[in-house]
Amino acid sequence: MEGVVDHLAFERNKTQFDVEEMKIIWAGSRHALEVSDKMARLVASDPAFRKDDRPRLGRKELFKNTLKKTVYAWKRIIELRLSEEEASKLRSFVDQPAFTDLHWGMFIPAIKGQGTEEQQQKWLPLAQKMQIIGCYAQTELGHGSNVQGLETTATFDPKTDEFVIHSPTLTSSKWWPGGLGKVSTHAIVYARLITDGQDHGVHGFIVQLRSLDDHLPLPGITVGDIGMKFGNGAYNSMDNGVLRFDHVRIPRNQMLMRVSQVTREGKYAQSSVPRQLVYGTMVYVRQTIVSDASLAMSRAVCIATRYSAVRRQFGSKQGSLETQVIDYKTQQARLFPLLASAYAFRFVGEWLKWLYMDVMKRLQANDFSTLPEAHACTAGLKSLTTSATADGIEECRKLCGGHGYLCSSGLPELFAVYIPTCTYEGDNIVLLLQVARHLIKSISQLRSGKKPVGTTSYIGRVEQLMLYRSDVQKGITAHKKPTRYNTKWYKKC
Amino acid sequence: MEGVVDHLAFERNKTQFDVEEMKIIWAGSRHALEVSDKMARLVASDPAFRKDDRPRLGRKELFKNTLKKTVYAWKRIIELRLSEEEASKLRSFVDQPAFTDLHWGMFIPAIKGQGTEEQQQKWLPLAQKMQIIGCYAQTELGHGSNVQGLETTATFDPKTDEFVIHSPTLTSSKWWPGGLGKVSTHAIVYARLITDGQDHGVHGFIVQLRSLDDHLPLPGITVGDIGMKFGNGAYNSMDNGVLRFDHVRIPRNQMLMRVSQVTREGKYAQSSVPRQLVYGTMVYVRQTIVSDASLAMSRAVCIATRYSAVRRQFGSKQGSLETQVIDYKTQQARLFPLLASAYAFRFVGEWLKWLYMDVMKRLQANDFSTLPEAHACTAGLKSLTTSATADGIEECRKLCGGHGYLCSSGLPELFAVYIPTCTYEGDNIVLLLQVARHLIKSISQLRSGKKPVGTTSYIGRVEQLMLYRSDVQKGITAHKKPTRYNTKWYKKC
Repeated sequence: MEGVVDHLAFERNKTQFDVEEMKIIWAGSRHALEVSDKMARLVASDPAFRKDDRPRLGRKELFKNTLKKTVYAWKRIIELRLSEEEASKLRSFVDQPAFTDLHWGMFIPAIKGQGTEEQQQKWLPLAQKMQIIGCYAQTELGHGSNVQGLETTATFDPKTDEFVIHSPTLTSSKWWPGGLGKVSTHAIVYARLITDGQDHGVHGFIVQLRSLDDHLPLPGITVGDIGMKFGNGAYNSMDNGVLRFDHVRIPRNQMLMRVSQVTREGKYAQSSVPRQLVYGTMVYVRQTIVSDASLAMSRAVCIATRYSAVRRQFGSKQGSLETQVIDYKTQQARLFPLLASAYAFRFVGEWLKWLYMDVMKRLQANDFSTLPEAHACTAGLKSLTTSATADGIEECRKLCGGHGYLCSSGLPELFAVYIPTCTYEGDNIVLLLQVARHLIKSISQLRSGKKPVGTTSYIGRVEQLMLYRSDVQKGITAHKKPTRYNTKWYKKC
Repeated sequence: MEGVVDHLAFERNKTQFDVEEMKIIWAGSRHALEVSDKMARLVASDPAFRKDDRPRLGRKELFKNTLKKTVYAWKRIIELRLSEEEASKLRSFVDQPAFTDLHWGMFIPAIKGQGTEEQQQKWLPLAQKMQIIGCYAQTELGHGSNVQGLETTATFDPKTDEFVIHSPTLTSSKWWPGGLGKVSTHAIVYARLITDGQDHGVHGFIVQLRSLDDHLPLPGITVGDIGMKFGNGAYNSMDNGVLRFDHVRIPRNQMLMRVSQVTREGKYAQSSVPRQLVYGTMVYVRQTIVSDASLAMSRAVCIATRYSAVRRQFGSKQGSLETQVIDYKTQQARLFPLLASAYAFRFVGEWLKWLYMDVMKRLQANDFSTLPEAHACTAGLKSLTTSATADGIEECRKLCGGHGYLCSSGLPELFAVYIPTCTYEGDNIVLLLQVARHLIKSISQLRSGKKPVGTTSYIGRVEQLMLYRSDVQKGITAHKKPTRYNTKWYKKC
């Protein structure tokens, strides 16, 4: 458009730091930046990966579109001989939830983490060549946060050396697993292990769901898609599913036996592998969620910041241009803390990565001492960063006024696809209660002389701390609406 | 399901108030309750009004579905000889945004409010029989909150006795009007009135957009749909549109001339009708928004409360039932304030209705004294109730855990269809600034002896008030996360 100033160029020219350096810091390294840039260009330049039509597709078209993209991405990864790092980046730029997320992100890791050597040798090659496609069937219609309350049973039958997988109630139906509704041939199914009438709690089992010949459900299996989810596009490209078992039999060697085993005779036993390794995996998954929070927040903030620089409203004097909305304090007070949070989450994500590696090193040396604190850190940061990001995306949408309500702003789909993060891998409210419990426990253990570690080590200085009183009672919330994540921070204590 | 307790019946039996009486209070009268019940049953029992397939339809199917429902509803209203009250209730239970909302809610009222007797006699019968369909074209691509900044021009041409409607820039394109994209034949277009080179500010004009023969855009008109909006179903049933004019000519008598006129000679003049009537309309519209906030909040709270009574998680002892989540304090602390808000908004909505009638009575007697305070009240309450409701719906969704993310919970579409309320009819942040300005002005006028009226009359007791100090510094936010609408409330002052 002639005569129109490019306001973004003007704003960018005012930058007071080295943008190229900042890109490297953000990416983590020059190499990471290069991989990211290369994959971003690959996806953006290929019309097969177009996203703009996604919001207006009906469910069926959207699902077909996802299958097509997934197959095409797999083809390109092989043709271009992409490294695993590159392939993973490519998938993240394709940015359309698909059954492959669960296949690569949950099914394969579960076999790696909980399967024996033998089980890994049998199942991993099949999965890695995608000759079988797997999902992760834990949550049930009536059971989410309380995993110990799962009702599906896996009863050992010593006569045939098999487990009988069964859904005894309506509430025991598996509900939510991504990739289950239409695509997966196999699932890791979590069920109560019962041997000789005794309940040993929840364990994982590899269960085939559909025929490898005609893809029809196997006898005793009822499976389907649970329907539409929040938003345009978003998770509707995923076939989240429902699954019921009517006395489905699987061989004994399909129980994941790295940590616990059932013998031919039906005897239940623990292996020498420490159970705590499972918590290590949890720390890993939540650490990636914190990193992803930073990515989602930065996308939303980027859109809202550019809009705020271009959009003008009020404040004009007789025909001159109106004021850029980014120059209004009401806009700045809402936008800039979110911009800062995107960076903060990026850096705390890096720290969590270090924490995970440190914990794993210790676990391998049978040192479990830092695990509770690491668990509390990741639980707390998962809750804090995902809640702040979900709220932040919606705030960015509002900062774009009416335009944020259009899918073409990118914000509605970003919100809809992001918000489940507040619920999955630990409901944010439940996680905060766990953090609180850890803190209270740390304090109550002080009497017995147990020193708190890591981020909680400051509690060890409790007697000194009690001498201080906060002097920030006045004014701390005066300039800005309190939000979930800043009300409890004090400058000193 | 056998053996499963009906937990809702159990909870309902514990009620300590007269439910039938409460229904009447909520509806406003026994008559209103009966009309509401009758229309609700009519819509719920007619498969033509089914809603469950809405989220999974592609845009085109959804739009066709809306046209079909709209035509069918119109047919039923005539067949059943429904009163205007019944027809309006029926439309609200059909609950699918459509071009008719703007036709009945904005186009016709604008002609009634701003048109002369002669204009009303010509246009209203056409509109009321739906021989023409109208929309309301105010907002432009570059101009929302600042209505005075609109760029579309209406230049009087004395040679032909016509106005020339023109879009001089890209940012002057009309953007957002519902019903514009595909359906409307006419629009009320807001444009800068220019006579003899002089700009008289923004005025309304009736402009025909499409042929009544073949529905094609008339010469000089470029019109289209602006694309997908937030969420499944939701506002995607509406054809929000874009509109550009290339020197489109309309007869002089299509300027809405109740308040201002342009004579045959091109002279601009004000009529004796007070301009303040426009503010009366604004009070009316915002008053209905507050009532609607209560309805939306109550739907969300109803879903979340029922879910909380049925859902059980944790707390079981050896095979007994788990605890109903409604019995957890963390659930109660989030849910119950929203339940209370739904009632509070219902009652403050009734009060605003009274305020509107009081203001109108005064305006007709040329008494403008209470208008600024009434304007501030409705602006503030519109902002407060819609922000709280938008946040409240999302909170209710989270209170339903993973299940809230499914469209079958009803919450995702309720959120998506509700949130534009925070932006339209006055952006909530801008409105709060207007309230603040009114309060500051009221205080600054105290010196000149001007007494604040209505809800601000307490400011007149400023000297007494200054003697008090709040004693609630401690503990007020301890039991509950502060939200936008409760941080500034103090029990005493």
